[in-house]
Amino acid sequence: MDLLKNKIKAEGVVLSETVLKVDSFLNHQVDPELMVEIGKEFAQRFKDQGITKVLTIESSGIAPGVMTALQLEVPLVFARKKKSLTLSEGILSSKVYSFTKKEENTISISHKYIQNDDRVLLIDDFLANGQAALGLIDLVKQAGAEVAGIGIVIEKAFQDGGKLVRETGYRVESLAEIQSLENGQVQFKQEEAKV
Amino acid sequence: MDLLKNKIKAEGVVLSETVLKVDSFLNHQVDPELMVEIGKEFAQRFKDQGITKVLTIESSGIAPGVMTALQLEVPLVFARKKKSLTLSEGILSSKVYSFTKKEENTISISHKYIQNDDRVLLIDDFLANGQAALGLIDLVKQAGAEVAGIGIVIEKAFQDGGKLVRETGYRVESLAEIQSLENGQVQFKQEEAKV
Repeated sequence: MDLLKNKIKAEGVVLSETVLKVDSFLNHQVDPELMVEIGKEFAQRFKDQGITKVLTIESSGIAPGVMTALQLEVPLVFARKKKSLTLSEGILSSKVYSFTKKEENTISISHKYIQNDDRVLLIDDFLANGQAALGLIDLVKQAGAEVAGIGIVIEKAFQDGGKLVRETGYRVESLAEIQSLENGQVQFKQEEAKV
Repeated sequence: MDLLKNKIKAEGVVLSETVLKVDSFLNHQVDPELMVEIGKEFAQRFKDQGITKVLTIESSGIAPGVMTALQLEVPLVFARKKKSLTLSEGILSSKVYSFTKKEENTISISHKYIQNDDRVLLIDDFLANGQAALGLIDLVKQAGAEVAGIGIVIEKAFQDGGKLVRETGYRVESLAEIQSLENGQVQFKQEEAKV
C-alpha cells in the first residue's frame, strides 16, 4: 500500500535495527484519513471471506480496526490487556508476551461478542514476533469461531512473527512489509536496494 | 443524541446505581456506524472552535475520537496510560485516579504532538468523577496549548465530574446525560420520569 509506505518513509523513525517508531500517524498521534484508507484496503482484500467480526487488541489496533469494521459493515471487538471490573463473566483469555515492552499481558475478550458462528478478521498495527496475533488466534479458537484472515498494518518481515503466523495456515495480509531497518533506513520487501 | 440514547436503553446493562456497562457498542465491542454518527455530532457542535487536534485517552476514547478527528480533518492523539519503551523524550504526564478500576494511572502524551499553538478538543467515552478529563486538561495546559472544548459520549450526571469539569470554564458537550441508574433503570437528564 503505497500511501502507507510513503508515510513510513516520510515520518517513521528508525530507533534501532529492530524498532521503528510510527508515533506520528499510528501509535500515538493517529492520521484519521490514513486509517480510512487502511480500512478500505483491508476490506477490499478480505471482502469475499464472509467476515462477521473484526477483532483487534487495545490500543493501537483500534483505529485501523474500527475503520476496517466500518467498511465491512460488521462490529469491532477489541481485546483488553487487563481485566476490567465491569468485564467479568464469560471471559476468554490468552497470555501474550510483548518483546517491545518486555512484559507478559493477559489478553481477554468476552465470549458474548465472539461466538461459534463468527468468522473473524484479526487486525493489528504491527506483526513482529507474532505473539499478539497468536494470542488473538487462540481467543478465536477458544470461542469456537473461525479465523477468516489476519490483516497487519506494518510487518517487520525480518522478525519471526510472519513465519510463525503463516504456519498456522491462515491468510496474512500486511500492508507494508519491512525487510530491514539496517543503517537507520527503512527498506521494504521486494523493493530493490538503492545503489 | 437520540441514536445513542436509544442504544443505551436497548443494550446498556445497569450493574449498580453507579455502573453502566456499554460493552456491546463502546467499551469492548464497538459499533462503527454509531462511532461515525458520534464523530459527526461532536464535529458539528465544535465546528466553529478552530480545533487543530483531538485528544483522548486509550482505549475506549479512541474509536469515538478518531471518528471526530476524521470529521474535523485534524489528527487524533491518544494519551497513554503507561510509558512505552518507544515513547520517551519530551513526555508530558499527569496522574489520574480511576474510581472504576480503583487504581492510579499516569497518563502521558508526547509534547511533539500537542504544541503551544494547538486548539485541542478533548474526547472521552465517559464522564463520571471527572478525573480523566481533568488529567487531559492538565496535559494540554502543560503543553501550552488551548482546550477548545470537551466532548463526552456518556455523562453520569449524578456523579461529581460534570460539575468539577464545568467549573474549569471549558465548554462540555455530553451526547447522553444520565440522571440516574436507580432501580436498574437508565434515566436520562431532562427526560420526564415515567409514572
